[in-house]
Amino acid sequence: MKTATVIGTGAIGTSVALALTRRGVTVYLNDIDQAAAKTAEAMGAGSLAAPDQQVDLAVLAVPPAHVGRVLARAQRDRLAQAYADVASVKKVPHDDIRAMRADPASYIGSHPLAGTERSGPLAARADLFEGRPWVLTPSAATGQEVLNSALELVALCDGMPVLMDAGVHDHAVALISHAPHLVSSLLAARLAHAGEESIRLSGQGVADVTRIAAGDARLWGDILASNASAVADVLDAFAISVGRTIDALRAVSDADADPAKRQRAREDIEELLREGNRGCGRISRKPGTHRTELTTVSVAISDKPGALAELFTSIGEIGVNVEDVRIEHSQDQSRGMVELVVQKARAGELSRRLDAGGAWAASG
Amino acid sequence: MKTATVIGTGAIGTSVALALTRRGVTVYLNDIDQAAAKTAEAMGAGSLAAPDQQVDLAVLAVPPAHVGRVLARAQRDRLAQAYADVASVKKVPHDDIRAMRADPASYIGSHPLAGTERSGPLAARADLFEGRPWVLTPSAATGQEVLNSALELVALCDGMPVLMDAGVHDHAVALISHAPHLVSSLLAARLAHAGEESIRLSGQGVADVTRIAAGDARLWGDILASNASAVADVLDAFAISVGRTIDALRAVSDADADPAKRQRAREDIEELLREGNRGCGRISRKPGTHRTELTTVSVAISDKPGALAELFTSIGEIGVNVEDVRIEHSQDQSRGMVELVVQKARAGELSRRLDAGGAWAASG
Repeated sequence: MKTATVIGTGAIGTSVALALTRRGVTVYLNDIDQAAAKTAEAMGAGSLAAPDQQVDLAVLAVPPAHVGRVLARAQRDRLAQAYADVASVKKVPHDDIRAMRADPASYIGSHPLAGTERSGPLAARADLFEGRPWVLTPSAATGQEVLNSALELVALCDGMPVLMDAGVHDHAVALISHAPHLVSSLLAARLAHAGEESIRLSGQGVADVTRIAAGDARLWGDILASNASAVADVLDAFAISVGRTIDALRAVSDADADPAKRQRAREDIEELLREGNRGCGRISRKPGTHRTELTTVSVAISDKPGALAELFTSIGEIGVNVEDVRIEHSQDQSRGMVELVVQKARAGELSRRLDAGGAWAASG
Repeated sequence: MKTATVIGTGAIGTSVALALTRRGVTVYLNDIDQAAAKTAEAMGAGSLAAPDQQVDLAVLAVPPAHVGRVLARAQRDRLAQAYADVASVKKVPHDDIRAMRADPASYIGSHPLAGTERSGPLAARADLFEGRPWVLTPSAATGQEVLNSALELVALCDGMPVLMDAGVHDHAVALISHAPHLVSSLLAARLAHAGEESIRLSGQGVADVTRIAAGDARLWGDILASNASAVADVLDAFAISVGRTIDALRAVSDADADPAKRQRAREDIEELLREGNRGCGRISRKPGTHRTELTTVSVAISDKPGALAELFTSIGEIGVNVEDVRIEHSQDQSRGMVELVVQKARAGELSRRLDAGGAWAASG
């Protein structure tokens, strides 16, 4: 692969572009959001110029519902020899492509299982896909060259290719990603109107269970709508086990019930918990992963003595914890750009107060 | 408070004993599990000797269902002037104490909101309760001296006292701890029999939602059984919102449905997610809640141009995330000290590699 076009410079598209650029591929960027595309270009993800000939691969990093339309148009323009989308559901794009009579031979569905809770090009990282599964869902019509091109894409991004049927993929992600997100959201929603005396007793457990409920509601609404039937199937089975648990709890708390019956209900609850232990044990939990929703604030600074120390002193006074720092220098070392990874909830305030201080130019 | 007996040398009891010993209280340890008691003694939590006179306070760190029986026996032995349990539910102990005709005047219910996922004395830490809420549930019969003794206990353990009615407490912990634990377990249980092809696609989201499902099934069975009615109430409300979500997902996926109806269902799902955003935003997720996993590495630096940038570049190369940074300067601004808050597991390596680099003097 020598040339590629990435359509859609959000977090995933820009990460793909950064990874390909790093490996020597000439990457062209394309987004209806010009600001996002320019940011991705400034990050070194590729060029905004139009390719002067057909590229080897076009990566369609657009929402699932747009894949069919974007593919049909790109094929009409003869943009690339092969096309792969990276949307998080696969049946909807496959069906749309058929409905829109796009050419299925030059297209392959794909889904890198690498998330960022943050969105937009600034959330992109060249190593986002490193060691993560990357599902490929070729149809019977997908050409062998197109599959090879997608496998090369995954290899260049250091991902692990997994071939899967589109429908099987959608049920799998419903189970291990979409339904857990909804359950986390529904549980968090129960806390929206809880009394402050309850909330103040909360600890790390409920904070972990509800962490992903902070995700972008519109983005997740799109994802869930695109995989609604599979997610409903998982939730149906989950609802049955919730119902059984409620029955067992009511039996345990019924002081007038037969002691043997109460004891059985007590054992049922413990068995449910053990089943949870078993399921929990199957999920890999690497240390060092982030607990809070983070975002990046970029600050331009001079390279004068103490400029960085001053910056960190200002940040300390504002009272924001910096989770990670990346520092980029200009060629002549006269100025630099500091990227501060901070909690999303504090990012707006940090940008405003750094700007108000006059010494810095921050952008969220 | 000069003397105390801790009955039950599990993680919570031993943590209380360690905290009191650290503050100069003479602590006696007592457990029917001799191995646990000896481990706690070896950790410096107190003495296995029998106290030679009545102690100021007995802390009953036993499961909720045993509090009444253990209290009645300790009072018969005139073990202490005041008694406090630390069980995670409060109605059951209160009711049992009445049923067993134990003396309610010298007893106060209490619950430190500090968890460890591990159990047993080896999971204990003297700072487990630092900055965490510690609920006290005095009854109308609880003596003023007993309440004061409990307040002193909380202060010695660096906890934050919260006075609350026993029933209100139980509903609050059902909402913010017990029901979230069950929901996490029930979701994890769905994964126990999932195909390996699904499990391998799992990422950080489902890992977080199911993390607490790893908790001890027997211990959690006890807790849930002791608060069954309040937990069932919370799950009832949760089950209704799960049912509504399933209906909305089915409506969205029904291709034959009226488009306006599908659009409304789509909006309903997004509104549920926004409600989840709101609830999620109420739960504190300070990096400080994981304070035990974090530690500080101090690095001396010069205030020469670019010294800090060089330091952060080195840290970046080592690949350690900096959770927080504090910078101190000497009076004449010629040198400074940078305190880096990092994950405990990486601190040793960071110190060694910064030292090996030669440019820095790091201390863990």
